[in-house]
Amino acid sequence: MKRLKLTLEYDGTAFYGYQRQTNPPVRTVQGTLEDSLKKILSVEELKTAVCGRTDRGVHSLGNVMHLDVEDDVDTYKLMGGLNHLCKPGLAVVSIDEVDEDFHARASCYEREYVYKMHTRRQPSPVREGRVAHVVYKVDFNVMKKAAESLLGEHDFSAFRAARCESSTPMCNLTKLELTKVDDEIHVRIAGNHFLYNMVRIICGTLVDIGRGELPAGAMDEILASKDRRKAGITLLPAGLYFVEAKYR
Amino acid sequence: MKRLKLTLEYDGTAFYGYQRQTNPPVRTVQGTLEDSLKKILSVEELKTAVCGRTDRGVHSLGNVMHLDVEDDVDTYKLMGGLNHLCKPGLAVVSIDEVDEDFHARASCYEREYVYKMHTRRQPSPVREGRVAHVVYKVDFNVMKKAAESLLGEHDFSAFRAARCESSTPMCNLTKLELTKVDDEIHVRIAGNHFLYNMVRIICGTLVDIGRGELPAGAMDEILASKDRRKAGITLLPAGLYFVEAKYR
Repeated sequence: MKRLKLTLEYDGTAFYGYQRQTNPPVRTVQGTLEDSLKKILSVEELKTAVCGRTDRGVHSLGNVMHLDVEDDVDTYKLMGGLNHLCKPGLAVVSIDEVDEDFHARASCYEREYVYKMHTRRQPSPVREGRVAHVVYKVDFNVMKKAAESLLGEHDFSAFRAARCESSTPMCNLTKLELTKVDDEIHVRIAGNHFLYNMVRIICGTLVDIGRGELPAGAMDEILASKDRRKAGITLLPAGLYFVEAKYR
Repeated sequence: MKRLKLTLEYDGTAFYGYQRQTNPPVRTVQGTLEDSLKKILSVEELKTAVCGRTDRGVHSLGNVMHLDVEDDVDTYKLMGGLNHLCKPGLAVVSIDEVDEDFHARASCYEREYVYKMHTRRQPSPVREGRVAHVVYKVDFNVMKKAAESLLGEHDFSAFRAARCESSTPMCNLTKLELTKVDDEIHVRIAGNHFLYNMVRIICGTLVDIGRGELPAGAMDEILASKDRRKAGITLLPAGLYFVEAKYR
């Protein structure tokens, strides 16, 4: 046997999230990928693990899953076969052979997301489902300043949605960068660990601060409160991308 | 009466092209826009003109149409109403009042398009329908050099599709710029006039030259031949955007 690391790109709007669902049996990334793998590898059972179990509508540029296959599997042909069977909306960008102790989730020391929003008044059909539409006027510099409070190791309970299954609310954010790209604001967030809906709640809170719905200096207080009700809205998944999983 | 200039953004994959079709009555940009206008303005007949009658799958960031309305029409409310009724896939980005001799097509002295392609081996689901997938290895510098031959005033018959209704094959290209953006190549083309499928045939010819299917120096000969069979393939509409219409 050998262990393979698959890097996945997918259009979140084409799936009901990453995780397989059986009742009802909707189209998911995991289901599409595993069913295609079973067909190509001619196996009935398959065990895979993924780095990020992304929600419905969330995109991926670099989510990672791993599985074990027989030694004689040709990875180049496997990639071609998967990219044929997994259409539309899902592609395997690369397949690498890794050590047997590699684990897509457990071995990952840093994940990076980007949230893209545009803030012009009119909707942007060409970016629909790819870039979130924030209809409020926001102050970019106020948002940038507020984001600084979140860098480093903190208890992120205030930015944790109700259904979160994480054993700890502690996360270490190593990057939180806001950039302006034409009429868009991109929020790039990296950290060792993320709670359920955390990136979308952080971005929603930044928007609420940027538009004056929450005070400019509110971020420290929200973080310290550990109270989800103190933070801002949860932004829609359309603007969120899982960018990269980092391994040693 | 007053004349209004509407700037349109649309996702080409949501429509069967710009021009209204009645048999069968498929969804078109013109049909969607005119039907919404009639509803909002409470009129039964409406005369509009457009700058670019884009094909099915071709996107717009700045196509322009004009129409006449009663003096008391509130353009701000009109834009809001249209952006509600024209969803999904179509938005009016701006409405300006213009002189009565303004004509969306006839007054336009320069149109600009951009064609976006990515050239990595694997498909890119997140860019599906937005950026064309060119599966060949291409030499960017060879393409850039070949493009130079097309600048200026020429007979573009070699880059004209069969169903073209233009009265003249003469066009003056004022811009033909190739840029690399990560793994994408963007071809930006501006000119006073374009023939049917001209941008997609030019880009297909650049790809054929870039991958060595046509000789590096072939462009001058193709242009001089005035023979469509000498030029390259017609690229898919997915990567093509009508960017801007310029008026004095």
